[in-house]
Amino acid sequence: MPRQIITLTTDFGLKDHYVAEMKAVILGINRNVDIIDISHGIEKFDIRMGAYILACATRFFPKDTIHVAVVDPKVGTERRSLLIQTKRGFFIGPDNGLLILATRNQGKKHIYEMKNENVVLPKICDTFHGRDIFAPAAAHLAKGANPKEFGPEIFNVVEPSFTKTCKKNSVLISEVLHTDVFGNIITNISEKALKSANIAGYCSVNFKDAELKLKFCKTYANVGRMKTLALIGSHGFLEISINQGDAAETYNVKNGDRITVRSN
Amino acid sequence: MPRQIITLTTDFGLKDHYVAEMKAVILGINRNVDIIDISHGIEKFDIRMGAYILACATRFFPKDTIHVAVVDPKVGTERRSLLIQTKRGFFIGPDNGLLILATRNQGKKHIYEMKNENVVLPKICDTFHGRDIFAPAAAHLAKGANPKEFGPEIFNVVEPSFTKTCKKNSVLISEVLHTDVFGNIITNISEKALKSANIAGYCSVNFKDAELKLKFCKTYANVGRMKTLALIGSHGFLEISINQGDAAETYNVKNGDRITVRSN
Amino acid sequence: MPRQIITLTTDFGLKDHYVAEMKAVILGINRNVDIIDISHGIEKFDIRMGAYILACATRFFPKDTIHVAVVDPKVGTERRSLLIQTKRGFFIGPDNGLLILATRNQGKKHIYEMKNENVVLPKICDTFHGRDIFAPAAAHLAKGANPKEFGPEIFNVVEPSFTKTCKKNSVLISEVLHTDVFGNIITNISEKALKSANIAGYCSVNFKDAELKLKFCKTYANVGRMKTLALIGSHGFLEISINQGDAAETYNVKNGDRITVRSN
Repeated sequence: MPRQIITLTTDFGLKDHYVAEMKAVILGINRNVDIIDISHGIEKFDIRMGAYILACATRFFPKDTIHVAVVDPKVGTERRSLLIQTKRGFFIGPDNGLLILATRNQGKKHIYEMKNENVVLPKICDTFHGRDIFAPAAAHLAKGANPKEFGPEIFNVVEPSFTKTCKKNSVLISEVLHTDVFGNIITNISEKALKSANIAGYCSVNFKDAELKLKFCKTYANVGRMKTLALIGSHGFLEISINQGDAAETYNVKNGDRITVRSN
Repeated sequence: MPRQIITLTTDFGLKDHYVAEMKAVILGINRNVDIIDISHGIEKFDIRMGAYILACATRFFPKDTIHVAVVDPKVGTERRSLLIQTKRGFFIGPDNGLLILATRNQGKKHIYEMKNENVVLPKICDTFHGRDIFAPAAAHLAKGANPKEFGPEIFNVVEPSFTKTCKKNSVLISEVLHTDVFGNIITNISEKALKSANIAGYCSVNFKDAELKLKFCKTYANVGRMKTLALIGSHGFLEISINQGDAAETYNVKNGDRITVRSN
Repeated sequence: MPRQIITLTTDFGLKDHYVAEMKAVILGINRNVDIIDISHGIEKFDIRMGAYILACATRFFPKDTIHVAVVDPKVGTERRSLLIQTKRGFFIGPDNGLLILATRNQGKKHIYEMKNENVVLPKICDTFHGRDIFAPAAAHLAKGANPKEFGPEIFNVVEPSFTKTCKKNSVLISEVLHTDVFGNIITNISEKALKSANIAGYCSVNFKDAELKLKFCKTYANVGRMKTLALIGSHGFLEISINQGDAAETYNVKNGDRITVRSN
């Protein structure tokens, strides 16, 4: 039997012992897995950034990969733990929006609220569900446990504003997901949402402090140096960029800022 | 035969080639291993922090895991190289206290001074025992080499002050091991040491600049916001914390600072 | 069949999704590999540092290891993609000098310009050849694809100045490759080049702002504290260091600076 793949995405950083403890728990239950780190550098408690990185990274993994994600400011409260089965794999994590962009990409099949005590550690620490609930659940799933046995199927999950795009009179109202290391402004507006609003060729974009008329481009170099452009990134989301410049700094835009887009 | 697990804990950082060289040496000797990083972000030469991270991370690994740790300011001097066999696994590293908290947790069985030239690289660089001694020794051990063949059994190891707690007239005198990213002050006082001094319910804690009367809590939220508390962390050590605040900054406490604790 | 090893060296950092996407692509094509990170902390676009780290790290990996390296400021332009077969393994990356120091160490056998569309992803993004060309090529090679089928054999590669040492009237004219975390100044002058210029025992070294008469030492401690020395590092290159001090800061030297060395 080939080894199963389990991926990890967290805001725990790499200095401390937390990530290693999750790996230890997985390997203690199931030695026949390859554990692949996606990122442990998500900004502390930044669910938006976590959701975006997870959605980007998980597109290329083989079928049946199990993705564990932990950016979990409400750990220890009543928030639910989820196992989401998609057409391509499995996602395990808190019910706070973290898993939505990635699972929407892949097509959801079933969502289970994880409640079965047999798939988690016997003693659960209120501050570390990554180690005590999500990691062991992933290890048992990789071992062949039936997803249906993890808990009751549910049909609604928490959907924070960053997972949605509103359309009002052909204007898309939305949110900035992430400003990356190059200063690109990544929104949560999908290619599909743009089409549904008949936005193509050119667009008008409004941030708090700026109104821009932009051309849709295939690549940064389609406009001159230091010119601003719109493009659909390889992640499938609308991105506002400056060729060889820093758009986030130039327009003073941060994660979570409001953005509106309309046809020009 | 299932693959053996070898873990790595160092202060080498992740920018340079050092960690990869250790992995290359291991895989050159033994392809049938999974190498798991615990942390390469230990502060340069901070044996205390290394010992603490190692003790935390190694509790959950499967039986017979081999842990290699390198925080080694005295590399190339007369300091000894150790192989410690516990009831749950193996620890390889310098004799400077780095392995003590972790091995004490697991119950020591045998300590060997590594001297056998057949389990290390033929050419040893004075500044890189991680690659030339500890990594190859771990690879050979994972391949089935007998621990007894690594060198003579010894019965004493170096025990720096941070590995000890003194008791004088029911006062515990001890040291700060680590101040973590949340500002929690982690001491080297174990739950057992507290019991032996009949400290429970409440305690008096003295740092250089502060005297505190604290309640023992189960979790941070047991006291109000910005209130100080004492608790036994999931690592088993006494921790002084401020709920949603930064205790290390507030009380001006650093790794290695003296702390005394007595019943209140 | 034992698992093949694929190593990764990039300037992508560990926060983002890029490295995970490369791993996902590899595992999607070939599950029977171990992926080992060398470093993802190469300074952005610093081909010199990448070449140096790669050369250091790849010396100890087992025979037939496949090394993928991506520091690629000209991605998406006409620069070629290379597969270099050495006596010990394979190197895949851009034709910009990044692979030269490592492959020279191992003895080159064949260089192929990668052009075969069957070994890369069907859709290639102009800004991410690491994921769409280099990663899948490595996965196919690990699966047993014949190197000759990757493209035409070529006989010249780009050789930037940092890969060369000039000799003029027994003076070696060269370049600083890297200044490491300890302030050591690592040059691109090999032990062999020093011998060919009859430099031994002592040497005269010139930087922009300094002229030094230095003794060749075996180890830092061969000179007094804060004294400057020359040595051949374990990487095989001439290194200028200050015992317990920071040579790069003291002499104001940066990556890429000119250095001349002659017999004293």
